[in-house]
Amino acid sequence: MLKIRMLISGLALAGSVSVACAWEALPTKAPAPADNPTTAEKVALGQMLYNDPRLSSTGTVACASCHNTMLGGEDNRPNSMGVNGQTGGRSAPTVWNAAFNKVQFWDGRAASLEDQAAGPVTNPIEMGMKSWDDVVVRLKSIKGYQEAFEAAFGAGTISKENATKAIAAYERTLITPNSPYDQYVNGDKSALSAQQVRGMEKVAELGCVHCHSGPALNGDGGFQKFPINSNGGLEAKYHFQKDKGLAEVTKKPADEHFFKIPTLRNIALTAPYFHNGSVATLDDAIKVMALTQLGKELSAEEVKDISAFLNALTGEFPKQAMPALPPTPGLTFNK
Amino acid sequence: MLKIRMLISGLALAGSVSVACAWEALPTKAPAPADNPTTAEKVALGQMLYNDPRLSSTGTVACASCHNTMLGGEDNRPNSMGVNGQTGGRSAPTVWNAAFNKVQFWDGRAASLEDQAAGPVTNPIEMGMKSWDDVVVRLKSIKGYQEAFEAAFGAGTISKENATKAIAAYERTLITPNSPYDQYVNGDKSALSAQQVRGMEKVAELGCVHCHSGPALNGDGGFQKFPINSNGGLEAKYHFQKDKGLAEVTKKPADEHFFKIPTLRNIALTAPYFHNGSVATLDDAIKVMALTQLGKELSAEEVKDISAFLNALTGEFPKQAMPALPPTPGLTFNK
Repeated sequence: MLKIRMLISGLALAGSVSVACAWEALPTKAPAPADNPTTAEKVALGQMLYNDPRLSSTGTVACASCHNTMLGGEDNRPNSMGVNGQTGGRSAPTVWNAAFNKVQFWDGRAASLEDQAAGPVTNPIEMGMKSWDDVVVRLKSIKGYQEAFEAAFGAGTISKENATKAIAAYERTLITPNSPYDQYVNGDKSALSAQQVRGMEKVAELGCVHCHSGPALNGDGGFQKFPINSNGGLEAKYHFQKDKGLAEVTKKPADEHFFKIPTLRNIALTAPYFHNGSVATLDDAIKVMALTQLGKELSAEEVKDISAFLNALTGEFPKQAMPALPPTPGLTFNK
Repeated sequence: MLKIRMLISGLALAGSVSVACAWEALPTKAPAPADNPTTAEKVALGQMLYNDPRLSSTGTVACASCHNTMLGGEDNRPNSMGVNGQTGGRSAPTVWNAAFNKVQFWDGRAASLEDQAAGPVTNPIEMGMKSWDDVVVRLKSIKGYQEAFEAAFGAGTISKENATKAIAAYERTLITPNSPYDQYVNGDKSALSAQQVRGMEKVAELGCVHCHSGPALNGDGGFQKFPINSNGGLEAKYHFQKDKGLAEVTKKPADEHFFKIPTLRNIALTAPYFHNGSVATLDDAIKVMALTQLGKELSAEEVKDISAFLNALTGEFPKQAMPALPPTPGLTFNK
């Protein structure tokens, strides 16, 4: 755990200062790593790859299938559905503002958007490709991708590394600024209702912001244990502890039930909730968090106030053009 | 069969005159039926519905999943994949220029885009909704759809009829004019290569245009028998006759193996070919058609010329904005 935490802290981006309990507006641009500066050509290529179902074995599942940018950046399902109707145990996290996550995946096993983008493509229950070599063979067979990679990276540069760089560059454009909360933080005190302000104060008072801090309200360190407190009733209903989080990857007892702290941005749009999508409504998610993480039972009014505040975290979604995916005239590789 | 043919002829649209062997450019607008005039509000609503996976039981399959407008209007698969990874026996026809089809579905069982749009939503292996009543309940629960239906049809108008009208209105905007072929027909003799002109002349000479006539190269009457001629070798390889076409619906022997004449527009982008998607390449599709429909075996050069011509039927795809789908804040109905 320590090693991963240090790695994450080593990735901390210049200009991103998170102080617990300080309310901060969302930046309108996401910082890019030194080895993958954002360019228009990479973003255009990345948007095509992100939306292309031919990156899956069946030709039916794109990144966008489960992380739908026409919706809240995910699929509103408890568990996503990959190739051939398969489902896993986790709920798709939103891609909106994922650029501001300290770590990626629910268990935080990827340190960057680039690392994350490589995973689902070859996951047998997600996009089901046998290998990235197979993906690269496909992409190389498509003239439009030859051209788009050339524009983004130079001639003859189709590779796993560049494909994931392009997808990450595109994802860094998926930012939703100027929510009512941001307007309020930026000085427009009329942007939040009295109820939303009460919810905001309650969130600070209860200690939610201990983890959900910073402009993306997803903390500074990346990880937190969930659930901290549990009880038989909650567990029987939601089965939170079935998934060991980071320990599923590291196999270390100290990492058991540690998960990425998810952003609260656009949280109203991403039901159902938690790593396993077991909680159907935002109101129930608020109650569960207060109980498991803070040991507090909230009144119905407190839940309503916090819910109203969380609804104020829905930002403005950038208008996107629908990409035209490069064709393979006269043939197909989806046999 | 006769009755259906008369029905179709009764639907012939004013101003659409098809004469076999006359080369005609594609209109830039599709005529709308009198009871569903195209409006911007209907198109906007229709685009949302068309792209919304919440019109399927699992929340994973939209119209656009199988009829992908980022590609050639379909999924490049032999058979599409519906909810829970299910597949059927037919290949998704392209939605591009479907507005110019005389009948819809491979078996032509729907007389209009409106009728067609109702089908897949409640087909158990496609979008899997139990009923349109269930769809309407979902749509009514989404505030953004209440507003979009109100803008398109008036207050309190969410219904199967209006949903399919909106989808059809959107589909009437999916037209791909100004292909090299259209430029040529409109007088720019440099728009086609010498090989493409040879292919065009061969298509006329062989008689392909007996069925593939008119601006969309999909005939006047809607239906044709396929295959007309077959042989053991072809059938063993492609299994064309397993599907009885229109007779699967009407149960009449006279309708056996009658299918909608598909448009040749953008045919290069819609591999694999035929009602069952059994032919992987355009070149093989050309050979098969000459053998089965015209009893002719083509030379390799003839196939190349015709393929070059068919590639000239790829039109200009209108730029589309990616719609923002209306959310259901704080909850989801995909349990």
